Amino acid sequence: MSTVTERIIKAHLVSGKMALGEEIAIRIDQTLTQDATGTMACLEFEAMGAPSVHTELSVSYVDHNLLQTDYKNADDHRFLQSFAAGHGIYFSPPGNGICHQVHLEAFGVPGKTLLGSDSHTPTGGGLGMLAIGAGGLDVALAMAGQPFYLVMPEVVGVHLIGRLPDWVSAKDVILELLRRLTVKGGVGKILEYFGPGVQTLSVPDRATIANMGAELGATTSVFPSDAVTKSFLASQGRTAVYRSLRASNAEDFKEIIEVDLGSLTPKIACPSSPDKVRDVSDVEGTPVQQVAIGSCSNSSYRDLMIVAKILEGRKIHPQVSLEINPGSRQVLENVTIAGGLLSLIRAGARMHQSGCLGCIGMGQAPATNTVSLRTFPRNFPGRSGTKNDQVYLVSPETAAAAAIYGKITDPRRLGDYPKIRQPRHFVIENRQLQAPLDPGQSCEIIRGPNIQPFPKFTAIPETWEGQVFLKVGDNITTDHIMPAGSQILPLRSNIPAISRFVYQAVDPGFIARAEQSGEGAVVGGDNYGQGSSREHAALAPRYLGVRIKLAKSFARIHKANLINFGILPLVFENPQDYDRIQSGDRLLLPNLRQRLMAGDERLPLLVNGEECWVRLELSPRHRQIIAAGGLLNMPDGNSPK
Amino acid sequence: MSTVTERIIKAHLVSGKMALGEEIAIRIDQTLTQDATGTMACLEFEAMGAPSVHTELSVSYVDHNLLQTDYKNADDHRFLQSFAAGHGIYFSPPGNGICHQVHLEAFGVPGKTLLGSDSHTPTGGGLGMLAIGAGGLDVALAMAGQPFYLVMPEVVGVHLIGRLPDWVSAKDVILELLRRLTVKGGVGKILEYFGPGVQTLSVPDRATIANMGAELGATTSVFPSDAVTKSFLASQGRTAVYRSLRASNAEDFKEIIEVDLGSLTPKIACPSSPDKVRDVSDVEGTPVQQVAIGSCSNSSYRDLMIVAKILEGRKIHPQVSLEINPGSRQVLENVTIAGGLLSLIRAGARMHQSGCLGCIGMGQAPATNTVSLRTFPRNFPGRSGTKNDQVYLVSPETAAAAAIYGKITDPRRLGDYPKIRQPRHFVIENRQLQAPLDPGQSCEIIRGPNIQPFPKFTAIPETWEGQVFLKVGDNITTDHIMPAGSQILPLRSNIPAISRFVYQAVDPGFIARAEQSGEGAVVGGDNYGQGSSREHAALAPRYLGVRIKLAKSFARIHKANLINFGILPLVFENPQDYDRIQSGDRLLLPNLRQRLMAGDERLPLLVNGEECWVRLELSPRHRQIIAAGGLLNMPDGNSPK
Repeated sequence: MSTVTERIIKAHLVSGKMALGEEIAIRIDQTLTQDATGTMACLEFEAMGAPSVHTELSVSYVDHNLLQTDYKNADDHRFLQSFAAGHGIYFSPPGNGICHQVHLEAFGVPGKTLLGSDSHTPTGGGLGMLAIGAGGLDVALAMAGQPFYLVMPEVVGVHLIGRLPDWVSAKDVILELLRRLTVKGGVGKILEYFGPGVQTLSVPDRATIANMGAELGATTSVFPSDAVTKSFLASQGRTAVYRSLRASNAEDFKEIIEVDLGSLTPKIACPSSPDKVRDVSDVEGTPVQQVAIGSCSNSSYRDLMIVAKILEGRKIHPQVSLEINPGSRQVLENVTIAGGLLSLIRAGARMHQSGCLGCIGMGQAPATNTVSLRTFPRNFPGRSGTKNDQVYLVSPETAAAAAIYGKITDPRRLGDYPKIRQPRHFVIENRQLQAPLDPGQSCEIIRGPNIQPFPKFTAIPETWEGQVFLKVGDNITTDHIMPAGSQILPLRSNIPAISRFVYQAVDPGFIARAEQSGEGAVVGGDNYGQGSSREHAALAPRYLGVRIKLAKSFARIHKANLINFGILPLVFENPQDYDRIQSGDRLLLPNLRQRLMAGDERLPLLVNGEECWVRLELSPRHRQIIAAGGLLNMPDGNSPK
Repeated sequence: MSTVTERIIKAHLVSGKMALGEEIAIRIDQTLTQDATGTMACLEFEAMGAPSVHTELSVSYVDHNLLQTDYKNADDHRFLQSFAAGHGIYFSPPGNGICHQVHLEAFGVPGKTLLGSDSHTPTGGGLGMLAIGAGGLDVALAMAGQPFYLVMPEVVGVHLIGRLPDWVSAKDVILELLRRLTVKGGVGKILEYFGPGVQTLSVPDRATIANMGAELGATTSVFPSDAVTKSFLASQGRTAVYRSLRASNAEDFKEIIEVDLGSLTPKIACPSSPDKVRDVSDVEGTPVQQVAIGSCSNSSYRDLMIVAKILEGRKIHPQVSLEINPGSRQVLENVTIAGGLLSLIRAGARMHQSGCLGCIGMGQAPATNTVSLRTFPRNFPGRSGTKNDQVYLVSPETAAAAAIYGKITDPRRLGDYPKIRQPRHFVIENRQLQAPLDPGQSCEIIRGPNIQPFPKFTAIPETWEGQVFLKVGDNITTDHIMPAGSQILPLRSNIPAISRFVYQAVDPGFIARAEQSGEGAVVGGDNYGQGSSREHAALAPRYLGVRIKLAKSFARIHKANLINFGILPLVFENPQDYDRIQSGDRLLLPNLRQRLMAGDERLPLLVNGEECWVRLELSPRHRQIIAAGGLLNMPDGNSPK
């Protein structure tokens, strides 16, 4: 007997041995892309020359760049729509909803593999999928029928017992795990949920928990597929795709985390990391100026309805701006039918279109020196669009309480807990999803002037020499490296333009140094590159001449992206050597190419002439890619086996 | 007997003679400001030192800068909220709706005067108000209890007979007038509607017509107050403020325009001016990629419900993005109750928060080389946020037809015309309007770092000399001079920062020339400064050193703004002299100050040493203001009588 995770991997295994730390390759059944990462993924897919996708299902969602402050976003939407139509890809137009929410509603299937160019793709784990976030290039390869390569992670069991008390919900479960494990506690792991508590959680609850497994650094999170799953699929008119995935037992896991749902209290992640978790009751009273409900973590029917019920007959505090971002068209429709929308409007909410919006810094930036409470998954510094922001992450219940009282408030003060009944059958008048053209039908691909071709990169030299452009600390996020927000996101399909923003909030001199100095390196601490899956955090630095990233440890998706674009991810053999290196130092890697191809796992690195040792934790396939200067330079038509 | 207009003016006359062309001053009962113009108006009001407003009612609306792509917009909202609370001003928070729509619902009173720092303030004319758009400084003065000065306009009668056919609505009436009169046809005039056709039009219909009187260049538009007005006020629970204003007769007017409502057909204003009007049937078939319903012209209950009814059971064309911007919280609430929202969602619309949004270039920019059909009042080039845009202005009916078919379509092809019944009583659960604090209660005014003090300007020199910084053509809009859009609007309370964008779309070298050359001039053609009331189109050029604007003719609000900030509006005596002047020419106005104060109406102007003559059409009060270098420099505490 084995875990749900192992059973899914085994059913999809293409190569490798399912042993901890071994590189394996798995077949990908479904892919998803969104517009911020998807334009580049499409350009990469196009560069591979495949006429159509080879997956069972690929979907192109537009949910990030919705503001359209100039032509660029709308141009990207049209490009994606025309590209999808002509390449066998479903298209979800702007305003239709957040990819992860819509995918649960319309496409997710228990037991299938899903690769998505969005770090919150693990949301699908709530439906019993093996759903993994990856860079756009990896997703493009999967669309072309290539397997997905990963290092076999440890499967950690999360044993749920009991039942959530009133006023405590799924968000509090994952916040509790973040409190215990921190943002690097899940690195190299898959969290699999089991135990009697699982059946007390709906699929949207499970999806919330699986979603923010990304914040733990986990490869993904997996729930079993059971009667609850079946009834969710039935509510979506999709009973036919149901299959049971029996939950694992304690003996299937080497490591188990115990969570008693019944003992949980309302939690809050304080500024500015998802793992700075405290009890809401500990920070009560802090004045709040903005409350935002939405994002792929908490924008389901239940999430909006609980807020609506709490606000029914009440008014929000006059100093609070309450932003409601429905997860999807279906959520908005069903909340409207159930009367929830009227309660929200009457309470004083601002109703926004369905999409990611403020969660990715696309509008909804808070005012200077004000507190924003959000049901979103991330509160990295400045991600809201406001420098020195004070963003807290909470459940919808805690968010609603703050909206009423204008300060952080334990929701248990609100009296009777409203019961939200999930509809047995969601009203689904129009999913507004566009099927691709039939094979053979032709379709002009529409390219706006901001859509620039993929840049060309050189192969690795025999001996590499360069300068340290920048040294940073621990837990650097891809938001630090390549910021998002309304100014920068529209440039995602234009590498020369977007590269002007690399590390700009950390060090405005970075670009100038990189331009003056030929090739170079960035030095980081632990968990380098956590957060969003954006491959631009590898691609744009590479465009600027970064060939080496040297850190104490790397986050999984970012490391994969570095390799894909020919950046060498080096790890300090002795972490204390981190202290010896400064910005501006000269680095030399003698006989790098030869050592790389020979499979050397240790390399000598000369720092201003003094030697230290670094580790190169790469598979043979990775070494070939890096030697070539990036995956798209590979000699076998970009499709390494 | 006299016109409604003259009766209202007479009841409010403070000084001057009600004779065509004479300067008069009128008492202002109500003011409105919005956030794009209101922050500056507040700073100006503050500079006058009044502790509280002296009007019957002043309202501060937030409806323009809603995207919040960084801290600036949200900071402005908090500033406006705190300023309003402490100065006797009602506050309408973001998401509550467009100022003109909310003012009709909650505050407008027949027979009252309304001055607003938004060029579409004449919307209130639909309710029998004398509602005039003005620069922020004029509104600030009115808030301080000062009268509003204007040149007594000609009152032109618009004689409406008949009844609108099916599929033709109020927007088509004003588009027909724009077709006949052009964007300068209303300059120096007030349009007053009378005749049997008036009673066939609801207050929202009248408001649509009065709203776009601004596009004719009219000072304002006025409707009588009758049984239809009374029933509208009753539907808002405000019967108490109703008073009758008997419609005028033909003999009350010197000039009359005849409009047979029954003979009208669906109209469309083609790119890129509101007066490029044709029959929809003439341009049928043009592919459409965006349809936007909303704006202060067409976002009422009726406007959204007619679209909802047309779309009921239908789906929008897959190549169209349908943007719905409800006019107010009340509109959204009542459309939801009536089932309209569900029809819109199911048809595939993107539902946005209530506000101006795409109409002011705050998002919703169309894609490159695509057609956008909008129910908005303006389609000036680039105002959408996309360069070389192709924006058409249409009725909600014509917009809905295009959304269904994906091309410009005469709505009369759609079959039976849905009947929209205006609710006898709108559901008004929560207007979400914040009353000011009681007098004496103190309130800290919250200022973000982007809120910069008002700049200081110098008095006019004895003899003025300078360079022509720029020469432009006819019908230059305030959007040309001081663009709006999501990048620039957040800088409205920061003159040094916003001035970097003056004339940038017309001539990117403008700023550098102005900075290198001391003081200077801009030369324009006819109808210079039409469009939005933004005083920044005077204030920011003045900050850059522009002291002279020389044109064939000026739009009313812009001319007033020029005077307020000490810019001399000179008019060519011989319009052909326009051809003699080029950018870079040296200008000299000998003994300018002396001639200005002596009341000279003709001035000699030396262009590179050669003389031509210009006219100075200014009242004695205007001359004092310009001599001082601007209204806020006036020696008597900024309150000239």
